[in-house]
This record gives sequence, C-alpha cells and structure tokens, in this order.
Amino acid sequence: MNPIDIINKTKKAVPLTNEEIQYLVNGFTSGEIPDYQMSAWLMAVCINSLTESETIALTFAMRDTGITLDLNADIGRVTADKHSTGGVGDKTTLIIAPVVASCGVAMPKMSGRGLGHTGGTIDKLESISGYRTEIPSAEFIDIVKTTGFSVISQSEKIAPADKKIYALRNATGTVDSIPLICASVMSKKLAVNADCLLLDVKWGTGAFMKTKEDAHKLAELMEKVGKSAGKKCRAVVTDMNEPLGHCIGNALEVREAVELLQGKIKGRLYDTCIELSADILELAGRGTHEECVAMAKNAVSSGDALRAFRKTVILHGGDGDICNDVELLPKAKYSHVIYAPKDVQIISVNTEELGMASLLLGAGRIAKDDEIDTTAGIVLEFSVGDKISVDAPLMTLYSNVCSDFSEVAMRAYNALKFRTLTSDVSTLT
Amino acid sequence: MNPIDIINKTKKAVPLTNEEIQYLVNGFTSGEIPDYQMSAWLMAVCINSLTESETIALTFAMRDTGITLDLNADIGRVTADKHSTGGVGDKTTLIIAPVVASCGVAMPKMSGRGLGHTGGTIDKLESISGYRTEIPSAEFIDIVKTTGFSVISQSEKIAPADKKIYALRNATGTVDSIPLICASVMSKKLAVNADCLLLDVKWGTGAFMKTKEDAHKLAELMEKVGKSAGKKCRAVVTDMNEPLGHCIGNALEVREAVELLQGKIKGRLYDTCIELSADILELAGRGTHEECVAMAKNAVSSGDALRAFRKTVILHGGDGDICNDVELLPKAKYSHVIYAPKDVQIISVNTEELGMASLLLGAGRIAKDDEIDTTAGIVLEFSVGDKISVDAPLMTLYSNVCSDFSEVAMRAYNALKFRTLTSDVSTLT
Repeated sequence: MNPIDIINKTKKAVPLTNEEIQYLVNGFTSGEIPDYQMSAWLMAVCINSLTESETIALTFAMRDTGITLDLNADIGRVTADKHSTGGVGDKTTLIIAPVVASCGVAMPKMSGRGLGHTGGTIDKLESISGYRTEIPSAEFIDIVKTTGFSVISQSEKIAPADKKIYALRNATGTVDSIPLICASVMSKKLAVNADCLLLDVKWGTGAFMKTKEDAHKLAELMEKVGKSAGKKCRAVVTDMNEPLGHCIGNALEVREAVELLQGKIKGRLYDTCIELSADILELAGRGTHEECVAMAKNAVSSGDALRAFRKTVILHGGDGDICNDVELLPKAKYSHVIYAPKDVQIISVNTEELGMASLLLGAGRIAKDDEIDTTAGIVLEFSVGDKISVDAPLMTLYSNVCSDFSEVAMRAYNALKFRTLTSDVSTLT
Repeated sequence: MNPIDIINKTKKAVPLTNEEIQYLVNGFTSGEIPDYQMSAWLMAVCINSLTESETIALTFAMRDTGITLDLNADIGRVTADKHSTGGVGDKTTLIIAPVVASCGVAMPKMSGRGLGHTGGTIDKLESISGYRTEIPSAEFIDIVKTTGFSVISQSEKIAPADKKIYALRNATGTVDSIPLICASVMSKKLAVNADCLLLDVKWGTGAFMKTKEDAHKLAELMEKVGKSAGKKCRAVVTDMNEPLGHCIGNALEVREAVELLQGKIKGRLYDTCIELSADILELAGRGTHEECVAMAKNAVSSGDALRAFRKTVILHGGDGDICNDVELLPKAKYSHVIYAPKDVQIISVNTEELGMASLLLGAGRIAKDDEIDTTAGIVLEFSVGDKISVDAPLMTLYSNVCSDFSEVAMRAYNALKFRTLTSDVSTLT
C-alpha cells in the first residue's frame, strides 16, 4: 500500500477499502505520511466526498488511534453523551447534563473550546472561579457516579488522529466536508463510548451548516455511523438562525444557564433544552417522549437539576455559590448599550456576525492558543420578531479588555436586519 | 490575500485573479506558503481544473519566478524550440535540432532527464563519451551561434517554481492535470523565450496522455498559452502507441539517431522527424509546408544535419567520431534475445510496459536521483503489424547491470499482443 495510490483513488472517486483508510489514518497520526500528502487527500475528500462505508471506516480508524473508555464497567448505569455542532450562545450542555443526570441517566462528557464565532463549553465552565476542566480520569468517573454528570476538557488520549487532522484541515481549506466533520465528531464520541448518543446538528447563520439540507445530510450520516457502532443514537437538526438564549459570552452564558435552572427563564432556550433532554431520556429507555418531557421539566421545576449542577461545580473545585447568586460570576469592567435609533421590528439576525462581535470583545479566539476574556460578550434585549421602541436598548456589549466599543458596536448593530415601523410602535405590539 | 481563501476558491471552482495566482506561486517558491497548503490547492486543480486565463496566469507566474533569456539579442537570428510530452524511444530532438539548424533556424534547447517509463534527451546525450550537458550559458549561446543548435540540461535559473511544484505533484498524486502539465511545460519554454515553439503532444500506451482526446485538450491549451505570450506556436498530437523507432535506451537511441542522420533509416521515425522539422521551419517562415519538408529531407540526405550534429557534440566535449562509427558508442556487457515462440502477427504493444522493461534493465529511473546504465535498453525487431516466423528474434535486451534477464524478458514479451498465424507465415506476408 502507498499513499499516492490511495490519494489517486479518492481523486477519481474510487472507494477505498477499510485497510487503505486505516493505513492512511495510522500513517498520518504516526508521522509516517507527511502533511502534504494528507492535505491532498483531504481536498479530494472535500470535493468528491466519501461513501457511507468509507466514512464509517474513517471514523472507526480515527477512534482506534486512541483509547476507548469502558463506561459500563466504571459507572454501572446507563450513560448518555451529546454533541452539538457548535453555535452562538449555545449553553445547552450546561442545562441538559444536570437535567438528564437528575433523571437517572449518567452523562460523562468531554467538551471542546470555542474557535471562531462559536463558543465552547469548556471555556464557559472555566468562567466559574476554581472550576478545573482537566482532572484525572478516575476523578472524572467518581464525579459522574456521585452527581450523575461531569464535563471535562477533551482528553489527549481520545482519538489523537482527530486533533492532528483537524489542525491540518483548518490550515488547508478542508474544513467544510460532511464526511470529515462526521468522522471528527463521531471518532471522539465513539471513543468516550456512552450507551446513548444525541447529536444536535445546528443549521443557519450562526452554524457551520448554513443550509437545512446540509444539516440533515450531516445528521443522517452521523446517526448511521453511531448506529453502526452499536449505539442508541439520534441526530436532530435545530435552528441557529438566532442565538440560543439572550446571552453570548462565557460567564454571561453560565449566568443564563443557572437562571434557567433556577426556573426563571422560559422561551426558546428552555424549550430546546427540555426537548433535547427528553430525546436523551427516551434513547436511554426512560419512557415515552411525553413522559420524558415531563421528567425533564420536573428536574428543573423541582430544583433537582440545579442541585446536581451545584454539586458537580463544587466537586470540580468551582464556586458552587454562583448557583444561589449569579452576581458572584465574574463581571466585565466595561459595558456599552446599543439603543434602537427608531421604532423597529427585528426581522432577522446574522448570528455568525454576532458571534464575531462577541469574539472581538474578547470572548472568543481567532487562533487556537488565543487567551479569552471570560466576562466579555453580548446580552440581547430582543428575540427575532420583537418590536422595539426608539431609544429602548437593543443589546449590551461587555468587555474587560476593550473600552472603545465603537467598531464592535457597529458590527453588532449591522448584524440586525429590521424594518422601520411607521406608526406608533405601541399600537402594533 | 491569504492561502486558505485562495484554496477555498479553487475548491469551489471560482476562478482566481492573476494577483491571487502570483501570490500563491511566489509564496510557495519562496517557502512562505507551506507544502501542505500547496498540495491541497493542486488537488483542487486536479479535480476542478482551471480556466484558460487562470492557466495562462499560472504559466506566466511560474515563468517569472526565474530568469527569461534574451535570445534575439544574443543569437541574432530566428530561434525555435520544441517540446515533447515524453514517450518511449523518442529520440526526435537528436534528429530535429540538427536538421532545423542546417536549414538556418537556431535551436537553443534545454532538456530534461527521464523519469519512470519515459526517457530524457539529456540522459541520451550523456551516453556520448565526454558530452557535457551542463555548461555556462555564454558557451551555450556560442555553440548555438556556431553550429545552429545546442542541447543542455534545464538550468536551475529557469522557472524554479516548476521544479518545486513538480516534486510536490509527484509526491501527492497531482501529476495528471492538463492545466498543471501545460503550466509546467510552458513556463520553462517561455522563459527560454525562442521565437517559435513546436509542441509535440504524445498520446497512447507509451504517453502520459492515454487518450487522443486528452492529448488534443493539452495541445490546444499549450498553443493558446504560447500564443498569448506572443510566440509563433503550434501544437501537434502524435502517436505513442508503439515506440518511436526500434531502439529504447540511451546509447541505443543515439545510435539510431546517428544512423538516421547517416541516411540509413526510413520509416515512421524518419517521417515523424521530417514532419516535425518542417513544422518548425514553417513556423519560422522558411516557406510553405512542402518547401519545408523538402528542406528537411535535404538536410538529412546532403549530410548537413549529421555534420551539424557532429560539430555540436565536439563543442560539448563529446566524441564526434561516433557520427562516423556508431560502434564507438558504449555497449552493454550482457544481452538476451527473445524469439517468437510460434508464427505470429504483432497486433499491438503496450509501450509503457516496454519502457518499464527498459527501465528495469537499467536505462531509466524510478526515483529522481537513481543512477542509470547508458548502455541498457531494448532493440525491437518488428513494427506493429509485422508477421514474425517461429524462432525469429522479436527483440534483444541489453544491460550492464542485469545478467539474469528472465523476469524482464517475461515483462517485455507480455507487452506484445499478437495473434497466432495458423497457416505458414510466408504465405501471409
């Protein structure tokens, strides 16, 4: 076997054998196959795609470059994992994990950091003073046994091929390939090896998948790969044409998640979290969908989920008191309010642009090793469709590093599309 | 400008601007753009192709990474250059250059070495004892002024981008792209900068272009690029479904070329050389095609071309006496004759396989830095269509390094496709 023959086959859209895919993945991970050959192959995949069985073989080969956890032996009850393809203001893991855990399904979860316009769960958790996202795996398992869930940083031992391939894709314009995205996500999830797997594929202006059609393709493919590995697996497609919730930015999103678990927030974020939690509970065999919805709602209204969250935060070394008093979360030194210049109705938002504005405030990273400002971000005062009176606030920007908001404010403002209301807004609402 | 945006455009088949192509070529040549980005782009080109104007821009950008010769000032008469896309037994340059030079058109020619199943003119000339293929450019020009032609090894100063890009293509399965082949050839030819340019695109089992259709596409594209650079340019498509002439291998091909210039050989090789020479003379404005054919034939029959060849060889430090006595060329220690096992008619040959057999005898290289055996090769005793009696020789294999011919003989024999003659062969011929 040699890399050039393999590259040539994919270039001509001739399917590879499992052995060829293993040879390529192992050779690249070990350093035997150089970057420049791998990037040529990745580009051929981007353009010509892969078959379903090639994608399965690629995922398994990537998974098998690292360890696979044995959660059944370690935890001794049904386990679930979820993945979101990333979005703006997506703090669902912070809510779903304690909700599901309160209903008896364990969630041992490894998460990533934010890159570009999208946030990452690990960055969000690190905005809680003291929270350790890198802990020994024995401690990780112990926390899951005690509270029902734990969220830690992706281990280096899980699918190391993915890290190396992703870095190369990021540098060679080969990120936007459905089979490559699928293999990247699923290789890690299958190595963590939970019994049930919920895959939340976002589509819209704030997501990597800009069209619903592509999101469905990715969702179907991931579900097939998960099932072919023997998992109880469901992929759902959810809307990311506006931010999920009203807060974007790490500490701001933790605050919103805690307030939701305190029972203070309803609306789209709440509905989405209940729905996704119920999907996981249903996969785990906890009842019909209606029963699972009721269980999830009860986990919030009873305060069980908030208590599970508090316990997990404390066991991770974090300040559990934020669960009683969100004012204890870190706060930005500087803020800036953007007001409506006239009576308007919000027609749509460019969610990616809001994510970029939040990044520029310090909440995100352009390059992988950039430092972030946990306090930075945006709080929106509207949902799409709302009518806003002249001089009422549209959003507030926060930052510890940026005191001159003029440029970012313009970018955030331009992310909104609205129509001017000609008559008195109060008569329209 | 950044490489990832450029890669993404070609990935989506969006045409690049001239500036983007220059940025890519210059960045890669200087080492600023890494191999792995360039190979991703090259794969995108292989699959999505380039437009005509992108190919022109790529060719010019590659040309401009090195020097451009000023032949008009240096030589003071009309100059011509030719390129063949490579084949098996293709010794036409050794014949055409002295023929054209004898007719008053100067040929200052830079050539390459053989790789894989195809031979290279420089290797052939180096089989002449003493012939220096690397000489100072002033000496090169002097020889062209004196004898009308000189053939030297490709200068490092000519289109350095091409060398670097070709090495990467060779390692990443991105060789077989018509725009990339065109840019590779034409960047070097336009840097040598002769007035007239004949491009001989081979097709068939012994050529890089396996189909006539692809050969025509490449020929048309190269002609357009040449004309867009202000050259008198013609591309012709010629047959490489059987070796050109009866000899394959370096010293063996010099011998055949000398014998043709001595007037001893007619047939397909002679006809092809006369035709290509006439094409060049016509481009150079020496007369109608018929007049040019007559001039070329006369250059051979009068002995003028042989004298020009002898002079050039001597000025390069080579043994000019080989022009009088081909027995002075180096000879292999070992040889092996393959006989017809029965009465047969040769239907076709796999020319690439014959080239590979010659390579395995020592005449060619698998890797760029392999040593070659100038004496090695194959002499064919037939043309396609010939009928051969049982026990008559089909071909003779030669080598200085390989004394056990069994394996290569089998490969060479299997390259022939023949039908068994049921009746006495003598009645059929």
